[in-house]
Amino acid sequence: MKVVVTGGAGFLGRRVGLALIEGKLPTPEPVSQVVLADKFAAADLPDDARLSSAIVDIADGASVGGLIDESVGAVFHLAAIVSGEAEADFDLGYRVNLNGTRNVLEACRAVPHCPRVVYASSVAVYGGERVITDRTPLTPQTSYGAQKAAGELMLNDYTRKGFLDGRGLRLPTIVVRPGKPNRAASGFASSIIREPLQGQRAVCPVKSETRMVLLSPRKVVEAFLRAFAADGNAIGGQRTLLLGGIGPSIGEMIEALGSAGGTAAVDRVDWTPDAGVQAIVDSWPQALEAQRAAELGFGVDADFEEIVAGFVEDELGGRVEA
Amino acid sequence: MKVVVTGGAGFLGRRVGLALIEGKLPTPEPVSQVVLADKFAAADLPDDARLSSAIVDIADGASVGGLIDESVGAVFHLAAIVSGEAEADFDLGYRVNLNGTRNVLEACRAVPHCPRVVYASSVAVYGGERVITDRTPLTPQTSYGAQKAAGELMLNDYTRKGFLDGRGLRLPTIVVRPGKPNRAASGFASSIIREPLQGQRAVCPVKSETRMVLLSPRKVVEAFLRAFAADGNAIGGQRTLLLGGIGPSIGEMIEALGSAGGTAAVDRVDWTPDAGVQAIVDSWPQALEAQRAAELGFGVDADFEEIVAGFVEDELGGRVEA
Repeated sequence: MKVVVTGGAGFLGRRVGLALIEGKLPTPEPVSQVVLADKFAAADLPDDARLSSAIVDIADGASVGGLIDESVGAVFHLAAIVSGEAEADFDLGYRVNLNGTRNVLEACRAVPHCPRVVYASSVAVYGGERVITDRTPLTPQTSYGAQKAAGELMLNDYTRKGFLDGRGLRLPTIVVRPGKPNRAASGFASSIIREPLQGQRAVCPVKSETRMVLLSPRKVVEAFLRAFAADGNAIGGQRTLLLGGIGPSIGEMIEALGSAGGTAAVDRVDWTPDAGVQAIVDSWPQALEAQRAAELGFGVDADFEEIVAGFVEDELGGRVEA
Repeated sequence: MKVVVTGGAGFLGRRVGLALIEGKLPTPEPVSQVVLADKFAAADLPDDARLSSAIVDIADGASVGGLIDESVGAVFHLAAIVSGEAEADFDLGYRVNLNGTRNVLEACRAVPHCPRVVYASSVAVYGGERVITDRTPLTPQTSYGAQKAAGELMLNDYTRKGFLDGRGLRLPTIVVRPGKPNRAASGFASSIIREPLQGQRAVCPVKSETRMVLLSPRKVVEAFLRAFAADGNAIGGQRTLLLGGIGPSIGEMIEALGSAGGTAAVDRVDWTPDAGVQAIVDSWPQALEAQRAAELGFGVDADFEEIVAGFVEDELGGRVEA
C-alpha cells in the first residue's frame, strides 16, 4: 500500500511517515511506500527506498490530484497553516486549511477504491469551555479552528457518501516539540523543557499553578496510526475523535524537568509573567474527557516524566546538558 | 439602505424582500431599495420602484461581487440547493451551498462598511437527536446539513474578524408552503393542508400520531427581519440561532384542516403509509428548545390553527374550497 502524508516535511508528518515504514504499529495493509508531501522537500530522510518526498501546492487542485492518484491507498492529511498564521493571514488560512483539505478529499474521491484518510484536526475547534467532552459543541474562536471544524464536516460527509474512509483526530497541545522556540502561545510549554535540557535558557510566561492538557509526540504518532487501522464502524458517523491528554501544572512540568536535568536545568527557566499569554492559556481547556477515544484504545502518557523521557530519547539521543 | 436578497425569486426570499419594502417590521435603517437576486428573475413583482430583481450565479465569485458592491448595506443570503438535490448532485450542492456562501461572505468583506448578513441555515445541521437545544452539537447526516453547518462556521469567523456582521437562523420545517407538491420528505406536511383547501386530493404518507416541528412562513419572515434588526452583542459570538416551532401531531394538523375547510377538506387526504417517509420523519427532532431565540424575542405560532389561517389569508385570498 502506498501512503501519502501531506505536511510530510513537518515534525509530525515526518514522524508519521517513518512510523508507517518501520511497521511496528499495525496498519490495515503492509505499507510499501510513503510519500512525504509538502510545500518543500523533506530534508535528511533515512536512506530507505520506500520513503520519498514530493513537493505539492495543497491549495492547487491539480497539484493535489497529481499527488493522490489511483496508486495511493491512504492519505494522512496533516498539511495546515497553523493557528497564529491563519489568524494573521486570513486568505492564506482559508486557501490552505479549507480549500486544501477539500482538494485532498476531492482527489481521494477521484480514486475508485475509497482510500482511508486520516485528518489532523485540533482542540482549536472548541472555544472557551473548561472541560471538553465528546458532546461539547464546536465553537471555534479562531479562523484556524473554524477551518478545522469545516474540514471535519466535509470528512464526515465524504465518508458518508462512500467517497473515502475518513478518520480525524482533534489534537491537544503537543509537548515536547523539537526545534527552535516559536511564537505560538503554547510554544513556551515545549521551550521550558527543550531549551534547559540543552543548556539554554527559556522563558516561562505563565504562573506555576497554570494547567495545560498535553500529549507527547509519541502518543500523537501512535494515535494517527491507530486511527488509520481502526474499524470505521466502531468510530461511527462522526469520524473525528477528541483525543485526551494529561493535565500537569507548569510547576509539575518543571519538577519533571528537574528529575531529568537536575537543578541546573530548572535554574535555566526565567519566570517572566506575560499577562497576554496567561490569559490565552487560561482560556484553554483544563480537561479533555475523551471517552470515545479511550474506548477505542487511544492512550495518553502516564505522566509528564514519561513525556520528558521520550523527548530525551527521541530528540536528544539520550543526552541531557548538566 | 440597499438590501440584496439571494434566493430572492424563491418563496421565502420574495416574502422577505416584500416585508423589507413594506416597512411594518423594524429594520436597522430605512430600506430604500431591495434587489431580489436569483438564478432567474423574480416574476410578477409588485410595481414598486424600490423593488428590482437581478440574475446572479452564486457559485461565481465575480458575479456575486458585481451584485454585492459598495452600495449594498445588507444581504439576506437564502440562495441554496435544497436537501434532496444536494444529496443527489454532490458537486452542485458544494458549489452553491459552500462556495456560494463563501462568495457572498467574500463580497461582503470587500465592502468597507461591514454589511449585515442574515444567513438561512437549517435544523438539517443536526442529526438523529430527538430533542434539540442551543447546546446540541451539529452532526449533520446530509450534504446539505454539512454545507449549512460549514456556512455557520464561516459566518462566525467573518463576523469575529469584523469583515461583516452576520446573523444566522436554523430554520425548522416551514408549513404551509405555497406552490406545487414537491418531492422533499417534508413536502406532505404542506401538501395535506394546501391541496385539500383548494379542492384537490393529497397523500399523507405517515401515521396520525407522528409529530413534526413546524414554523409558519409568517413567523419565518418575522424571524429574518428580527435577526436583521437584532443587537449583535446580544447574539454573541455564535451568530446562528436555533429557531423554535410548534410540534403538532399529523392528527392535530388534520383537525385544524377540518376547522378551516370542513369534512370535505379532511376527506381529500389519502392515508397511504410510506415506510420510507415515515422513517425519515421519525428521525427528525420532536422538540426544538430554542431558548436563546426565545430570549431574543423570536416567536413561534400560537397553534396549528393559526398557521392554517395565515396560509388561507396570504395564499388563498381568504377563500377555501368547500
